[in-house]
Amino acid sequence: MGKTNPGRFFEDYKLGDVIRHAVPRTVAEGERALYHALYPARHALYSSDEFAAACGLDGSPLDDLIAFHVVFGKTVPDVSLNAVANLGYAEGRWLKPVYPGDTLRSESEVIGVKQNSNGKSGVVYVRTRGLNQAGEVVLEYVRWVMVRKGDLDAPAPETVLPDLASVVAPEDLVIPEGLSFEDYDFDLAGEPHRWGDYEIGEKIDHVDGVTIEEAEHMIATRLWQNTAKVHFDATFRADGRRLIYGGHVISMARALSFNGLANAQLIVALNAGAHANPCFSGDTVKAWSEVLDKAETGAPGVGAIRLRLVAVKQGAPEFGYKGEDGKYLPEVLLDLDYWALMPI
Amino acid sequence: MGKTNPGRFFEDYKLGDVIRHAVPRTVAEGERALYHALYPARHALYSSDEFAAACGLDGSPLDDLIAFHVVFGKTVPDVSLNAVANLGYAEGRWLKPVYPGDTLRSESEVIGVKQNSNGKSGVVYVRTRGLNQAGEVVLEYVRWVMVRKGDLDAPAPETVLPDLASVVAPEDLVIPEGLSFEDYDFDLAGEPHRWGDYEIGEKIDHVDGVTIEEAEHMIATRLWQNTAKVHFDATFRADGRRLIYGGHVISMARALSFNGLANAQLIVALNAGAHANPCFSGDTVKAWSEVLDKAETGAPGVGAIRLRLVAVKQGAPEFGYKGEDGKYLPEVLLDLDYWALMPI
Amino acid sequence: MGKTNPGRFFEDYKLGDVIRHAVPRTVAEGERALYHALYPARHALYSSDEFAAACGLDGSPLDDLIAFHVVFGKTVPDVSLNAVANLGYAEGRWLKPVYPGDTLRSESEVIGVKQNSNGKSGVVYVRTRGLNQAGEVVLEYVRWVMVRKGDLDAPAPETVLPDLASVVAPEDLVIPEGLSFEDYDFDLAGEPHRWGDYEIGEKIDHVDGVTIEEAEHMIATRLWQNTAKVHFDATFRADGRRLIYGGHVISMARALSFNGLANAQLIVALNAGAHANPCFSGDTVKAWSEVLDKAETGAPGVGAIRLRLVAVKQGAPEFGYKGEDGKYLPEVLLDLDYWALMPI
Repeated sequence: MGKTNPGRFFEDYKLGDVIRHAVPRTVAEGERALYHALYPARHALYSSDEFAAACGLDGSPLDDLIAFHVVFGKTVPDVSLNAVANLGYAEGRWLKPVYPGDTLRSESEVIGVKQNSNGKSGVVYVRTRGLNQAGEVVLEYVRWVMVRKGDLDAPAPETVLPDLASVVAPEDLVIPEGLSFEDYDFDLAGEPHRWGDYEIGEKIDHVDGVTIEEAEHMIATRLWQNTAKVHFDATFRADGRRLIYGGHVISMARALSFNGLANAQLIVALNAGAHANPCFSGDTVKAWSEVLDKAETGAPGVGAIRLRLVAVKQGAPEFGYKGEDGKYLPEVLLDLDYWALMPI
Repeated sequence: MGKTNPGRFFEDYKLGDVIRHAVPRTVAEGERALYHALYPARHALYSSDEFAAACGLDGSPLDDLIAFHVVFGKTVPDVSLNAVANLGYAEGRWLKPVYPGDTLRSESEVIGVKQNSNGKSGVVYVRTRGLNQAGEVVLEYVRWVMVRKGDLDAPAPETVLPDLASVVAPEDLVIPEGLSFEDYDFDLAGEPHRWGDYEIGEKIDHVDGVTIEEAEHMIATRLWQNTAKVHFDATFRADGRRLIYGGHVISMARALSFNGLANAQLIVALNAGAHANPCFSGDTVKAWSEVLDKAETGAPGVGAIRLRLVAVKQGAPEFGYKGEDGKYLPEVLLDLDYWALMPI
Repeated sequence: MGKTNPGRFFEDYKLGDVIRHAVPRTVAEGERALYHALYPARHALYSSDEFAAACGLDGSPLDDLIAFHVVFGKTVPDVSLNAVANLGYAEGRWLKPVYPGDTLRSESEVIGVKQNSNGKSGVVYVRTRGLNQAGEVVLEYVRWVMVRKGDLDAPAPETVLPDLASVVAPEDLVIPEGLSFEDYDFDLAGEPHRWGDYEIGEKIDHVDGVTIEEAEHMIATRLWQNTAKVHFDATFRADGRRLIYGGHVISMARALSFNGLANAQLIVALNAGAHANPCFSGDTVKAWSEVLDKAETGAPGVGAIRLRLVAVKQGAPEFGYKGEDGKYLPEVLLDLDYWALMPI
């Protein structure tokens, strides 16, 4: 049994350690086609080379969430194999588009550790970076997870909590080089609504829903080389159910948000995120968004919009979110806070 | 709610209007691989670059039905979101092969309108064109749908019914530039039967069957960015069943027809089509064909064959089609009339 | 019915016949992406162009089992349509990596025939070769199947049994040109274990499991253009179950073996194989390996390791294999004996 990876336990994470994650991955047209097959993704910039070129890019990049899932997937064997819970995200930024043919790998730096008072687990904070074949960072984000201790007698480390921004400041958003929305074709994009048409506080019900199938979430999760047993092995949980990778819900909700946010083309920052409740096969996922903020950018014709994207399942009330106790309603699956770019 | 697309209602279609459909799409090797994964597609011209080159083409084009589904899928948000029924097809022609890397978009012209006598809906006729990145029309077809009225008080438009050919005339078939079947390799194609071996009136039972799964039809339908709720959301219909996109049945039947029609390589015209009965997950789809007509073409070694392709489900009698009342048997899913090209 | 392929019967195979199988196939990035989506495949050499280039190859080849499945799939209409059982494999060798854009076709030579004593069937031995567009053999293997007689009165042929090696000799393994593991990056590959760390007789439990879905095995099997009815048509067997293509289990088990054998990068020979028991949707597949042998190779830093890969389903005891009667336990799905290449 000494040959297989037992995963890291809480006491294995040392502040400042940089973990070089395994299995670099070349992503290409195949991953793009599968993304369109697995999610109702229709944002034009990620669908058409011509549309992307008209926006100043070198053809259509791979969806920002492909980059996220590939980079995230590589961290699973090192970060979340013994994780009890995925607690949060912060300071996520997309720094460079990923194009077909790029090869991605991931690194994570341990930036915080705090043992729980029960002595059986602790919280680990990592800053993960995705790098391309040129060594350029294409994506970075902070994530914190609760991890079991392997040796309950291991001494508690000194508590260090990272100082994390509650939101990525607009001036820290990175706009892809060359991006311009000055000649933006609203007909081809699918909706006429510009940045100026959205008001802070506005909520949008994205209407459409998708009922989740086992085969689909497993195909998606494997595609990102995410190997967590709980997504694949129906004998792993006592109830015989496979837990759906939280990222599958993120991509489903983001794709559904096209209907009302077709022009929120690029995701440039992930401010925060919570997987509020687990999702299982047979659930019907719907989504709604709230405009949280707006900002200008230096790029021609390009505005930034900060959105709360909420995924819910069947039975959720309209714009269902939190109860009077401040806790998520049981039908809420995802609460994601992100910045996107939109034509002004 | 003002940001989402409510779809067009009957009174929103004006004769002569040209609708530029949203979300252009670059199609490549990924879409080809998925087509082979979703359907038992084996026609050699669409499987092998070498085989296609030996037939005078610049490598293997994407399956003709990939072009059809992508072009069709773009029309859904504008044409069929409030459609009650998909009534028919006519005058479909493939005008240019689609190659990996091409970017497709769609336009539809309203060529006919007729309000129903109940005053609650009407029939809309559109001629849809698929265009590539060079602006060339790669595919065109007429389709008519029954659409609900949004405002029952909207006045009935003047009835205009387009004059549609019941079949595309052989002289109007467009043969891809350079196509030649003079050095056709029947071994590699899979069957020895030439154009001359088929007789008008001959029927062929394609033998094989495929039992349909929810995950598969949803993956296929999303791949073409077809967003109709009824295919994805199990909470949408009272019976909790997802209706399968008619195009999924078309592709399944066409792929099954390889067994007996392996040399009917290219689809060049769609004369007519009816989705006779709905298809649901769990149905086992089989297919049979009837030779309706034959014609010569100007291209070297290339003949045209007109086929009726009928998809049926479990329980259908042999060559099951219509009952004595002239109506389709309940086990008939599809009745498609098309022209294909075959070595003489 | 004369147009469809009835398959070959036992009496149709003549010693020395070479069957040129139909439907050549160009394989590319799409097939690679689907392979990663269908199996938890993580061997770095097949995931990253950069990693493969650092090992001396021209970018990342397609998985060795993609080549195997494509070549095998083409033989099905000619070899196994009327087969009762897939009895064994021998003398399999991978001779040349397959790269995106290559076009594969298959040929099989009949090298042995033996009618069964019941007079109703017989065993046919074929040596199958996969060729690329340059006519180079990329893969070869011997397979024997039991095939029904179509005409029970056909005379029994003279029995000829091929003389097959029980294992491919190390000196007959073909190492891809240029392959070197001298600068091998164990971090990126995912495990620190070298060839020298494995002992003959060592067994490794690969820990992870995957519960099989109908949609997934059908997508996989179609992707290789394997058309055997029994995998697709739920009405074909009396019990309404679809039999899973044995190759799906091979790929699943090989991918699961990453956990403990991440550095067994390339498959270079198939010594033997048995599909011990059928696999059905709902089964949870796990795998274990045993080190059978080790050998040096002439390539820099490259060792060969001979492995027994056993796939089992739920309920199997640890390292479950054969009972006291010498028969496979009912939970054993696959017993595969192969050579892989590993950094020394």
